[in-house]
Amino acid sequence: MQPRLLEIRQDVLSKNDQLAQALRERFAAAGVFVVNLASSPGTGKTTFLERTLALLTERGVKTAALVGDLATENDARRLARSGAPVRQIVTAGICHLEADMVSSHLEGWDLAELDFLFIENVGNLVCPSSYDLGETMRVVLLSVTEGEDKPQKYPPMFNSADLVIITKSDLAEAAEFDYAAAYDSIQAVCPGVPVRQTSAKRGQGMAEWLEYLIHVRKEVLCMEME
Amino acid sequence: MQPRLLEIRQDVLSKNDQLAQALRERFAAAGVFVVNLASSPGTGKTTFLERTLALLTERGVKTAALVGDLATENDARRLARSGAPVRQIVTAGICHLEADMVSSHLEGWDLAELDFLFIENVGNLVCPSSYDLGETMRVVLLSVTEGEDKPQKYPPMFNSADLVIITKSDLAEAAEFDYAAAYDSIQAVCPGVPVRQTSAKRGQGMAEWLEYLIHVRKEVLCMEME
Repeated sequence: MQPRLLEIRQDVLSKNDQLAQALRERFAAAGVFVVNLASSPGTGKTTFLERTLALLTERGVKTAALVGDLATENDARRLARSGAPVRQIVTAGICHLEADMVSSHLEGWDLAELDFLFIENVGNLVCPSSYDLGETMRVVLLSVTEGEDKPQKYPPMFNSADLVIITKSDLAEAAEFDYAAAYDSIQAVCPGVPVRQTSAKRGQGMAEWLEYLIHVRKEVLCMEME
Repeated sequence: MQPRLLEIRQDVLSKNDQLAQALRERFAAAGVFVVNLASSPGTGKTTFLERTLALLTERGVKTAALVGDLATENDARRLARSGAPVRQIVTAGICHLEADMVSSHLEGWDLAELDFLFIENVGNLVCPSSYDLGETMRVVLLSVTEGEDKPQKYPPMFNSADLVIITKSDLAEAAEFDYAAAYDSIQAVCPGVPVRQTSAKRGQGMAEWLEYLIHVRKEVLCMEME
């Protein structure tokens, strides 16, 4: 990268980090657990989030979602069917979400009323990795149809994951997906990161994912109270 | 985007455009037809290219390939099995290929000996759309597992396509892929662009794709001679 561009980019990232840190403190003070969902386009983030919001809402858990896309408001409409408040962030060509986009789309929401806020990032396995959104947990999704080698080919994103979810497990057989190879590729770039398998379409692994999420939120709240 | 960043970005793009134009003239003078393959990560670009190189080589057509990735040389190793000369461009974190990366990786190759040069871009449905590589044809790939709505969600990339190839058609039924919906989404952002369906794994549509490619190359060569 050209030195002048690199310098400007570092400046942008450093400002983003400051704003993300302020957001993180605000989220913690409100007791809201924030999940940043990132993946390649077409990994099934929206379907996964749609099921997650619906299942949490059924249990009486209070959720909201922000969803980022270059264009269209389709995803916000889909997610709103869960009954949760949802806002679309249209980035108008920008390839990732930034902390200030999140901040400006929270206006008018009472964060203290929420248990979880989900942020669905722009589908991109490269650029969103550099932008902290103040999230409590970063979840990187990988579908069984994408190929087991993707973690090692996109190390910054997988290295920044707090959890990796393998999606579309209903297609694993048709896609001849090799779970062990994918697991090894994930662990090679992010040693020790937990990995879960789900099919939001068929429901497989969704109950376990929700248990995990609720459990981790409790742990974080307890740590903050200590 | 911040004005200062926007200005620098425009400067980078304008320099890239100049270099791409010089490359385009060099490719035309050598009679080599250059294909820039772009898609999301996991669409099957490498498998598609591997089959394309092998099938063209079988027919005595002379090919070479450059392949871009953030990390690893895996793809170059895979593609080299076709017998074609292949070079890996490791971008070290940069989310797209640029014309100068292409230019510097051509050193020592006699372009006049080649019929086709394939450039496999970094898997990213956003950023590579802005960077002209001097290609003769830009091919954007979309797999049946990614969702029919992707063209409208990533308009700059699909809008810049000279051809759209739908990959992994062997998984269409399992993924409940709706071809008509995908076709409409493609045409909505790039009216009139040709669309083809393939399964590199099972061979479906590959012969037709090669016929098309060879035919278009002839047409371009004839136009240049007029």
